[in-house]
Amino acid sequence: MPIRATVWGENVHEQTSRSVAQIYPRGMHAQIAAVLAEDPNIVASTVTLQDPEHGMTEAKLDETDVLLWWGHAAHEDVDDSIVQRIVERVWQGMGLIVLHSGHLSKVFTRLMGSPCLLHWREAGERERLWVVNPGHPIAKGLPRYFELENEEMYGEPFGVPEPLETILVSWFQGGEAFRSGLTYRRGAGNIFYFRPGHETYPTYHDANVGIVLRNAVTWAYNSERYPEVLTAPNTRIEKSIEKLVERGARLEKHPH
Amino acid sequence: MPIRATVWGENVHEQTSRSVAQIYPRGMHAQIAAVLAEDPNIVASTVTLQDPEHGMTEAKLDETDVLLWWGHAAHEDVDDSIVQRIVERVWQGMGLIVLHSGHLSKVFTRLMGSPCLLHWREAGERERLWVVNPGHPIAKGLPRYFELENEEMYGEPFGVPEPLETILVSWFQGGEAFRSGLTYRRGAGNIFYFRPGHETYPTYHDANVGIVLRNAVTWAYNSERYPEVLTAPNTRIEKSIEKLVERGARLEKHPH
Amino acid sequence: MPIRATVWGENVHEQTSRSVAQIYPRGMHAQIAAVLAEDPNIVASTVTLQDPEHGMTEAKLDETDVLLWWGHAAHEDVDDSIVQRIVERVWQGMGLIVLHSGHLSKVFTRLMGSPCLLHWREAGERERLWVVNPGHPIAKGLPRYFELENEEMYGEPFGVPEPLETILVSWFQGGEAFRSGLTYRRGAGNIFYFRPGHETYPTYHDANVGIVLRNAVTWAYNSERYPEVLTAPNTRIEKSIEKLVERGARLEKHPH
Amino acid sequence: MPIRATVWGENVHEQTSRSVAQIYPRGMHAQIAAVLAEDPNIVASTVTLQDPEHGMTEAKLDETDVLLWWGHAAHEDVDDSIVQRIVERVWQGMGLIVLHSGHLSKVFTRLMGSPCLLHWREAGERERLWVVNPGHPIAKGLPRYFELENEEMYGEPFGVPEPLETILVSWFQGGEAFRSGLTYRRGAGNIFYFRPGHETYPTYHDANVGIVLRNAVTWAYNSERYPEVLTAPNTRIEKSIEKLVERGARLEKHPH
Repeated sequence: MPIRATVWGENVHEQTSRSVAQIYPRGMHAQIAAVLAEDPNIVASTVTLQDPEHGMTEAKLDETDVLLWWGHAAHEDVDDSIVQRIVERVWQGMGLIVLHSGHLSKVFTRLMGSPCLLHWREAGERERLWVVNPGHPIAKGLPRYFELENEEMYGEPFGVPEPLETILVSWFQGGEAFRSGLTYRRGAGNIFYFRPGHETYPTYHDANVGIVLRNAVTWAYNSERYPEVLTAPNTRIEKSIEKLVERGARLEKHPH
Repeated sequence: MPIRATVWGENVHEQTSRSVAQIYPRGMHAQIAAVLAEDPNIVASTVTLQDPEHGMTEAKLDETDVLLWWGHAAHEDVDDSIVQRIVERVWQGMGLIVLHSGHLSKVFTRLMGSPCLLHWREAGERERLWVVNPGHPIAKGLPRYFELENEEMYGEPFGVPEPLETILVSWFQGGEAFRSGLTYRRGAGNIFYFRPGHETYPTYHDANVGIVLRNAVTWAYNSERYPEVLTAPNTRIEKSIEKLVERGARLEKHPH
Repeated sequence: MPIRATVWGENVHEQTSRSVAQIYPRGMHAQIAAVLAEDPNIVASTVTLQDPEHGMTEAKLDETDVLLWWGHAAHEDVDDSIVQRIVERVWQGMGLIVLHSGHLSKVFTRLMGSPCLLHWREAGERERLWVVNPGHPIAKGLPRYFELENEEMYGEPFGVPEPLETILVSWFQGGEAFRSGLTYRRGAGNIFYFRPGHETYPTYHDANVGIVLRNAVTWAYNSERYPEVLTAPNTRIEKSIEKLVERGARLEKHPH
Repeated sequence: MPIRATVWGENVHEQTSRSVAQIYPRGMHAQIAAVLAEDPNIVASTVTLQDPEHGMTEAKLDETDVLLWWGHAAHEDVDDSIVQRIVERVWQGMGLIVLHSGHLSKVFTRLMGSPCLLHWREAGERERLWVVNPGHPIAKGLPRYFELENEEMYGEPFGVPEPLETILVSWFQGGEAFRSGLTYRRGAGNIFYFRPGHETYPTYHDANVGIVLRNAVTWAYNSERYPEVLTAPNTRIEKSIEKLVERGARLEKHPH
């Protein structure tokens, strides 16, 4: 059974910027989904901010193994209750790939517990991504480095927690360096942050970016769900594994 | 200059439970502050939930190097705007020690981005804490293990992110094991979670618990503050470090 | 194509101790291999210390995707050049599962760069292993905890580096706790340390131990090899990606 | 009491290269020690490869809180028994700062358990070091970035284990990026790898490099020593914390 990837697109600049629409005539989300679908083990669908419940209905999340998130201009328009719903799905085992300016999405900042801010510059400069962890599944099939001739610059310090592993580090023409591929786990959910993807450049048409995205979906996939991460069971004294005799005061009311 | 530690106490069970009031007649927060003050390099003060702004005014936070947080019954009564204020202070470099049932406080769960749930049992059973990282500053002066004759049990899985370092692991009489001392950094803020401290037992009168608390305050202390973690500066093209010529389309309006 | 797992057995106590021989009449390595072979995606073979080159010939390593290592009494009998050969294979991407007393094997201590020592007691006591990271692939299909009625005790502090992730923590009847399932990466090689497996008890006949072993092999498997991790290429100035003019003194002789 | 830092210098190129001797007339080690001594809380001394026992006598190590290691051309000339002695000191709590080409020293590679190789180019190009973890003690007082106008390039992948924390990332004029400041702990010993310091350039005369070195010494310092990390005590059954009755077979001979 293939992995079911859902691409969430903000779909704002595609409607308001001619440059963006020219590069992504069917929307960035559609292009990202097309790139994923090159892997026969992935089936990709898309939803957007404008869909009912932003496309993130319980039914859609039931059919989502890995969620990819691209947003920029409208982070605040995403409803808090939908954010909470998505966060809880991640905790239970849904994979999450956060793309580029999604670093400031509500979903990502709530999962990171950190400001997630950074320096930036929109100059169409060259970015070169270096693989620092070649044995990691997300780097499989990548060359030692790859280039994006035009990208937005993101500069350190990037206000995220220390990752589980750093996979990619970027060099920018204007003089900055940046940690561009970072893994996390929250609850049972695997999370990957991938830096490139500014809407005015054809990043999601790049072959190496496609390799990273497909690898990341495969890596983030977890076939199981863990609803118990949302519970806090009381282990009854009389059912303790090793025999116990209750001692001292307690707050909890006795059950009978 | 000594480290200024502020102990935040929920101060609910001290008023409603005779057992708690007997062990902590001036409140748990007062006892924790007294334990900290045994270190001449620490000055400790207390605030409680019932104080105006829960005691967490901007003025008080200005005078706080490290915050200790004990809460249990009234997590939901802590105002969201105060929580946000505290979280932003941590990001800027204030240390944070989260105690026992504080694992479900709004402050901790927002910083962790994880459910932070666990299994539990209130039976007054024996807990034995093992030092797994003896060279860490928080373990300095501790024996190889220490015991609390009566404690609440917390059982795995503990729904927190993988820590920077695991310092302590607990053994429980009833058969469970638990990661009891965990370090994190969020933004510039050092965070330590320390498991013991159930209100119906005299945990904060224990000598080894005192060592951990004083060590943790010393470890979490950062003399600097980093307000820039709350900013996302645009690095102007004309001021780029390496000379750049703008290329491609951009969304940002030109600055004239 | 199935994963090719090779089980390395020291095969000493099976020959000298009647108790061990009764539990593992064909050797511990044979039983471990049988347990792995229950997964149709794994083919398992065995080698022992007594084989030529300890069974770790270049040819055998060429056919090994994941190596499992059980040793105890004869760590010093393993030839240093063979150890180096195995270590370099791990760096290039071969998976490694280190079992029980293998914590003091030359292979493991050289990969960890740490003393790897611990406290111990051979009393046939009860061990209970708790899953602390239920979403990790190595924990897939495990119950919340499982028990081994008779095991050797290993006590903290365990002198290993902070792991990438802690998967299992043990509770011992005699009062100790221990980090029992730890992941590492060295070069491109995935490494898992799994605590249980004392030779005088039937640990490798336990169903949950079998789940862990099969999961660990699947997790550690990397289809690629990375011989370049053993090289340190000089990037010629005239071939630099961004054009460079040499400046300053240098040690390296000019190439003509 | 000030921290006692010992700078270990290979002291080979200072004798054979006029360029190196001009920049470091008293040796690189002497300059590094001078930089450290700017901090009144540090006293710095030097030893070199050519000293008896390479200067690393037991007596000298007894007086060393933090060791700094610079080597390049003569790694293989360092005696294995001295390496083992130093490694064991680190495990017991001595701090270690490994500088530049020390990445291939026996001391560092044995502590890392990894190949530690990298790409390189000696062109005197510009290096710009970015602080990615501004709240870390090693970054205290640093600007957001600092530059070294002439340095050797080191390129990824750098064959080291995933660090506890990444502090600095470098940008190189020729197009590479590199993780330049990494922390580790092995046993009780704090370890910091710091990339810059090629012998033909005046790196150790740079003010910001001095800040990093002094901060790193302060961070790595541990006032305690932990000789017990070199022991593996048998916990006698009759002295177990929780009462035990021996069960099953055992290998260990009974004590009487």
